[in-house]
Amino acid sequence: MERGFPESNRSREEPKLRKIDVFTHIWPQPYFDALQKVIGPMSNMPRRVAAIPMITDMDRRFEVMDMFGEDYCQILSLAAPPLEEHGTPEQALELSRIASDAMAEICQKYPDRFPGFIASAPVSNPDKVVDECRRAVEELGACALQVYTNVNDKPLDLPEFAPFWDYAAEADIPVFLHPHRTADFPDYQTEDKSNYEIWWTFGWPYETSVTMSRLVFSKTFDRLPNL
Amino acid sequence: MERGFPESNRSREEPKLRKIDVFTHIWPQPYFDALQKVIGPMSNMPRRVAAIPMITDMDRRFEVMDMFGEDYCQILSLAAPPLEEHGTPEQALELSRIASDAMAEICQKYPDRFPGFIASAPVSNPDKVVDECRRAVEELGACALQVYTNVNDKPLDLPEFAPFWDYAAEADIPVFLHPHRTADFPDYQTEDKSNYEIWWTFGWPYETSVTMSRLVFSKTFDRLPNL
Repeated sequence: MERGFPESNRSREEPKLRKIDVFTHIWPQPYFDALQKVIGPMSNMPRRVAAIPMITDMDRRFEVMDMFGEDYCQILSLAAPPLEEHGTPEQALELSRIASDAMAEICQKYPDRFPGFIASAPVSNPDKVVDECRRAVEELGACALQVYTNVNDKPLDLPEFAPFWDYAAEADIPVFLHPHRTADFPDYQTEDKSNYEIWWTFGWPYETSVTMSRLVFSKTFDRLPNL
Repeated sequence: MERGFPESNRSREEPKLRKIDVFTHIWPQPYFDALQKVIGPMSNMPRRVAAIPMITDMDRRFEVMDMFGEDYCQILSLAAPPLEEHGTPEQALELSRIASDAMAEICQKYPDRFPGFIASAPVSNPDKVVDECRRAVEELGACALQVYTNVNDKPLDLPEFAPFWDYAAEADIPVFLHPHRTADFPDYQTEDKSNYEIWWTFGWPYETSVTMSRLVFSKTFDRLPNL
């Protein structure tokens, strides 16, 4: 998004250009606290994420952002794990609420730095997911929704997830599809886990391709053409 | 391989150019007969392959080849299934022998049409695989060896397959790595099978990437740098 305006506009007057990083992860402090309560000692991906100072430390984030110049800003979204991976559907909903509240607050406080955020949809909670997405979008101003390529190993084209897609289409809002796979998904059926980090170097793009294919062939996009 | 000679040679004299299709599958009749005895009624991939007339019918193959012009020729190799999928290690060895004998005979009979063949290595038979590969290459003139990305679900970087790689490096001969995955490899851990043909549209490239990664990180290429 470095060049936000078509070439034809350029000749007349120079608009203010901004570098908008549309996919920048964060764990706001209230969310980080709540996440730690749900998952306990961190291992695997959460531990890797927590080791990145900018994820939890706002001062460090501003330092890093300044390296990219004054016109640089970020759209915020949560880092892995998926909300649903370590807790109950109720906990996933609570984590979603805490995260959206916190990201909205950061955006309000620093609108030039953070012009928007992506709400994490609590898709493991089918009774509440639409209400919470609606709250995040219509009350808090979320500009997109985030889901992962599987919901506790289930594909996103199952009927139980249809209300989420329906809402995203109704709200006419982008959905960010984040890859999700851990080393527990083996690459060979004679093995128990994936070796050499293949589960994400190749497994994540594979997950994304599979999920998009499933949404196409399950006719989710036929049903919701503006998704 | 349409242009077999470097540009710098062109200006002096026009060499005879050939279109060499280096990866063309076949089931020679003796192999097809033996395969049917081993696997019985065909389903899945074998049934799909058997439905392609050119795979088993030499007259049809010549008709198809003629469509690509006089300078078109093929390097022959077996189509899926892998030798080891449906039979014992002894049967895999026997299928390998029958196939290599038959492909070598076709190459001898029609050298302009078929300038070479790729022998299928009976990798499920660790005691005999090297002897049979050596026979195919040194006695029958195979110009390459074929294996699949897994051997009955096992990765190719296991110690039991090291003698095969050792021989390929010693013979200084190319190895063709054919993807292998069926619908029985699910894309989601809550499911029993892969849907919508994803197992090969995306699963086959994934298998190939995974296998190459495993050979790299298991240091197979460090051990055998000319592989």
